[in-house]
Amino acid sequence: MSVIPEKALSENSVGNETKIPQFLASKKVYVQGSRPDLRVPMRKISLSQTRTSSGFEDNGPVFVYDTSGPYTDRNISVDLLEGLGSVREQWIRERQDTDQLTGPTSDYGQRRLDDQKLDALRFQHIRKPRRARNGCNVSQMHYARKGIITPEMEYVAIRENQNLQETKALIAAQHPGQAFGALIPETITAEFVRDEVARGRAIIPANINHVELEPMIIGRNFLVKINGNLGNSAVTSSIDDEVEKMLWAIRWGADTIMDLSTGKNIHETREWIIRNSPVPVGTVPIYQALEKVDGKAEELTWEIFRDTLIEQAEQGVDYFTIHAGVRLEHVPLTAKRLTGIVSRGGSIMAKWCLSHHRESFLYTHFEETCEIMKAYDISFSLGDGLRPGSIADANDAAQFAELETLGELTKVAWRHDIQTMIEGPGHVPLHLVKENMDKQLRDCFEAPFYTLGPLTTDIAPGYDHITSVIGAANIGWYGCAMLCYVTAKEHLGLPDKQDVREGIVTYKIAAHAADLAKGHPGAQARDNAMSKARFEFRWEDQFNLGLDPERAREFHDQTLPQDSAKVAHFCSMCGPHFCSMKISQDVRDYAQSKGLENSAALEAGMQEKSQQFREDGGQIYRKV
Amino acid sequence: MSVIPEKALSENSVGNETKIPQFLASKKVYVQGSRPDLRVPMRKISLSQTRTSSGFEDNGPVFVYDTSGPYTDRNISVDLLEGLGSVREQWIRERQDTDQLTGPTSDYGQRRLDDQKLDALRFQHIRKPRRARNGCNVSQMHYARKGIITPEMEYVAIRENQNLQETKALIAAQHPGQAFGALIPETITAEFVRDEVARGRAIIPANINHVELEPMIIGRNFLVKINGNLGNSAVTSSIDDEVEKMLWAIRWGADTIMDLSTGKNIHETREWIIRNSPVPVGTVPIYQALEKVDGKAEELTWEIFRDTLIEQAEQGVDYFTIHAGVRLEHVPLTAKRLTGIVSRGGSIMAKWCLSHHRESFLYTHFEETCEIMKAYDISFSLGDGLRPGSIADANDAAQFAELETLGELTKVAWRHDIQTMIEGPGHVPLHLVKENMDKQLRDCFEAPFYTLGPLTTDIAPGYDHITSVIGAANIGWYGCAMLCYVTAKEHLGLPDKQDVREGIVTYKIAAHAADLAKGHPGAQARDNAMSKARFEFRWEDQFNLGLDPERAREFHDQTLPQDSAKVAHFCSMCGPHFCSMKISQDVRDYAQSKGLENSAALEAGMQEKSQQFREDGGQIYRKV
Repeated sequence: MSVIPEKALSENSVGNETKIPQFLASKKVYVQGSRPDLRVPMRKISLSQTRTSSGFEDNGPVFVYDTSGPYTDRNISVDLLEGLGSVREQWIRERQDTDQLTGPTSDYGQRRLDDQKLDALRFQHIRKPRRARNGCNVSQMHYARKGIITPEMEYVAIRENQNLQETKALIAAQHPGQAFGALIPETITAEFVRDEVARGRAIIPANINHVELEPMIIGRNFLVKINGNLGNSAVTSSIDDEVEKMLWAIRWGADTIMDLSTGKNIHETREWIIRNSPVPVGTVPIYQALEKVDGKAEELTWEIFRDTLIEQAEQGVDYFTIHAGVRLEHVPLTAKRLTGIVSRGGSIMAKWCLSHHRESFLYTHFEETCEIMKAYDISFSLGDGLRPGSIADANDAAQFAELETLGELTKVAWRHDIQTMIEGPGHVPLHLVKENMDKQLRDCFEAPFYTLGPLTTDIAPGYDHITSVIGAANIGWYGCAMLCYVTAKEHLGLPDKQDVREGIVTYKIAAHAADLAKGHPGAQARDNAMSKARFEFRWEDQFNLGLDPERAREFHDQTLPQDSAKVAHFCSMCGPHFCSMKISQDVRDYAQSKGLENSAALEAGMQEKSQQFREDGGQIYRKV
Repeated sequence: MSVIPEKALSENSVGNETKIPQFLASKKVYVQGSRPDLRVPMRKISLSQTRTSSGFEDNGPVFVYDTSGPYTDRNISVDLLEGLGSVREQWIRERQDTDQLTGPTSDYGQRRLDDQKLDALRFQHIRKPRRARNGCNVSQMHYARKGIITPEMEYVAIRENQNLQETKALIAAQHPGQAFGALIPETITAEFVRDEVARGRAIIPANINHVELEPMIIGRNFLVKINGNLGNSAVTSSIDDEVEKMLWAIRWGADTIMDLSTGKNIHETREWIIRNSPVPVGTVPIYQALEKVDGKAEELTWEIFRDTLIEQAEQGVDYFTIHAGVRLEHVPLTAKRLTGIVSRGGSIMAKWCLSHHRESFLYTHFEETCEIMKAYDISFSLGDGLRPGSIADANDAAQFAELETLGELTKVAWRHDIQTMIEGPGHVPLHLVKENMDKQLRDCFEAPFYTLGPLTTDIAPGYDHITSVIGAANIGWYGCAMLCYVTAKEHLGLPDKQDVREGIVTYKIAAHAADLAKGHPGAQARDNAMSKARFEFRWEDQFNLGLDPERAREFHDQTLPQDSAKVAHFCSMCGPHFCSMKISQDVRDYAQSKGLENSAALEAGMQEKSQQFREDGGQIYRKV
């Protein structure tokens, strides 16, 4: 066994098989699409019955979006040493617009492969890369604009749970007899997905070399997505840790992950991650390019950067953050800032520009970058290198000048049919958040926005998942398509596994709060199922329906550890006498039994109830 | 020693002296008001110097709002067994509108005092209660409407840090030579405070029997405040725990606390808390009244409730939550709800109404309640007994019918010159939050709003501090005056000490984010000081300026535990090569040295800088 996934294996595995522990009462199910190899995963949460005065009533299962990949499928055995099976290879082959290469075409990729000293830590089953045939463009946007609905588009349409008519029927056929709890009135079809991608309003990050990918979509007419960052640094962390963090992130619900490694063996770390990741993987290629010149920004060249793009493209990176909007003329705009340039990519390019006193090579070579992107279907995530690093610098001239440049570059990318999203801040007080969203939509022609937080105050180091979740929920509501998580360690250190968990769940909350606020059809179904379980004292169902069932159960057990408490008709806050939920149930049972609409019945019933309440005095809590 | 403050003593005390550990680099200072016994506490955070190319520059201290009371004053020795010293007794005596009574005038209060079995757990230095003379009204609102500026009003004017002209001068006189870091352009004077209180737009909760109180103000033209709940239940917790939680809550910044005890010895627990609390204490008297009838809501009577009000009034409770808006006619409106009535007070009253089929006695006896309130200056916190308990029930007919009733009751209270605030939800999706604030302002005539969260989704038990901080920050921005914290244990169990800490800090973030968004003058000063420290790699200053310095330091140390890391010019996320802050400093130093406005100089400088950068290649990180 290689040096790599030891930690992951030790916690989640039996022998070479790696599982992500499935949540209690949950089961992975698939919705079958139009072709046998198009099966869209969902997590089915089974609920217990409701006890009523006349017996028991079923509660239909709730189906939720599932990012955990094959690791939670009891019928699939995953070995991290082998990597995940292919989801998309056949789809890509069928399009007949790509060739399989004999090996990496980047110098660096080839050198790493040839280096025997790396054998011990190299992933052993590297796939031969694939590239567009000469003159072909293999981007989902290109197909979309030609009117083609790809399997990827159908996949995300089903996955978004929007197409209720079809999805409902599919689930009913596959899970007969089950009520359909959480899905959504029909809105979105595969054709709608195609149209949104064609217009540039959504992207499906899906490198042809990431065949393990379960496709997903990022756009403001879909569920708000979240990204989890990981990656080593010169100071801390190892490959094991990063693979482990990826598994952990997708367990809790990361829709994409970014590998931001800046330490050792970046190439090999990424290979391990991509081969085992069912979610899109993004990177910031300039980080690795800088490592190649020993951290000397001024020694960066287009050639080194270009080779890095190809190296990563052929490994399967799904989206590249490229800070091409940091232009020479923008750099002086940051000089009077309280916190200057806080983006690593931005500061590297600012340094390069100052050092050479020339326009950024990312900007001047943007068209050439496009040629690479479209040969592998990599999406742009146009980086906000000049994002504000403090409340004081929010929405300033530097930030907005860059945003306008990103709009200009979006147009260029779209000329090449390249899927593009735009990165956003950063540190922004609540009242300035909306201006960010509005300007981005206007200046970048509705390309999806992807923001880091934003943090709404600077004064709480150690709590920046919280300072930022406020901004994230708001900007998601205003139309931001993807939220990059911020962990509690922001500004202080690299997140560990528990920080990743808390950061992901925190951002799932922001995304879901935004979905509710946008009136996303069906988003409220899970809330309603939770609230019904609360009202009916179905404690286990409450845990199971939550974003973090394990923490909820643990917290509940700290106060009332006995198993009986979990079915008791009161909770630990109030005790039996005070249980407001129980009293409400009495009110409700009464109203239902009398017919709420009939006010005469109500009046009569009130008196009857009055008498009954007196007779039952003190009997509100009835042990089940 | 009594049974009570053992735990508190064991952690915070030497002998009988109790301290709350002061944060590093912080010191309690006082701003002297217009009379010798009017001294307003603030916490002064001292900062280290900034190293510049030409030497060192001072960074003025930052003064922050301090809720921790005498416990953090190194010159005052506090013994929990004795209680805090008096802040306000002389002010109250001077007004000559109150009498000191010989003992409690409530039956229950007298019975508890006479019960020798309670001696062991009774606070030993109970003050003799004070009450308004016949025909007198001792509320701050009454004085305000007569045009009187009380010491309490002057105190809060200084405390709000708004009155820069005066406060700045005062601090300069008392701390000569110190730059004035964090205060605020003048807006608010004692006269402004008086006017806001007179109009009902702000309240100063300050029972004449809580002489230990350091006055504070709740209103939307002041800093947003937060409340921390504590209190035992039938299931868990003891008096020690509650006193300990109070100390802990004010250390982290609770502006008020509510004692929501529903378990044993409620009367005695409250006495210990009030005698040792420098912040206003609120209660929900119906909880204790219910205990007096063994939990049988239908046996509650106005007489029992009235005696409870007087009992608590004479102990010094500063505000009462009274659910007088839950009227008989509202109860059926909740029958079709997903989660019925979730407020404990609301459900008790709903049960009473149903049981007797009569209008709530809280509503029918409201004027008599007012007579009690004004005899002690207790503020109303008109409870939202019908607040929604789920996203599905937000902003429904029951909730808004009650809110309209609260507006009607506000008018009644104001006829008696009683300070009044209004409680609000609950569970509300983001897009419905503003409607709550707007309707409250309209229907309740701008009386201060005091909300619980609101929680913006139901699906994250174990993370409800986070689901709710989103709603809290937003409603604070829209004008909510005080935010009741929600801890991570909400819906699951009672918070422990760490939950209280995390809940308070989370809500300090919401309040501060709201202050920034409202453009509250001076709120940004602390953010700016933090950001400057970040930019200049003053790690210790960053920790010390944070809301939770200890957690920030701990997190930083997990990644880079060496002391040298705290002064290093890079941080643990990026390592030396990647430090964007450092690169930004280079950009800035350069621009400053050349004069940013002069574009010719800029151009010339660019070239010079280009050369210099090349010469310095790789020397970006310079060890201090």
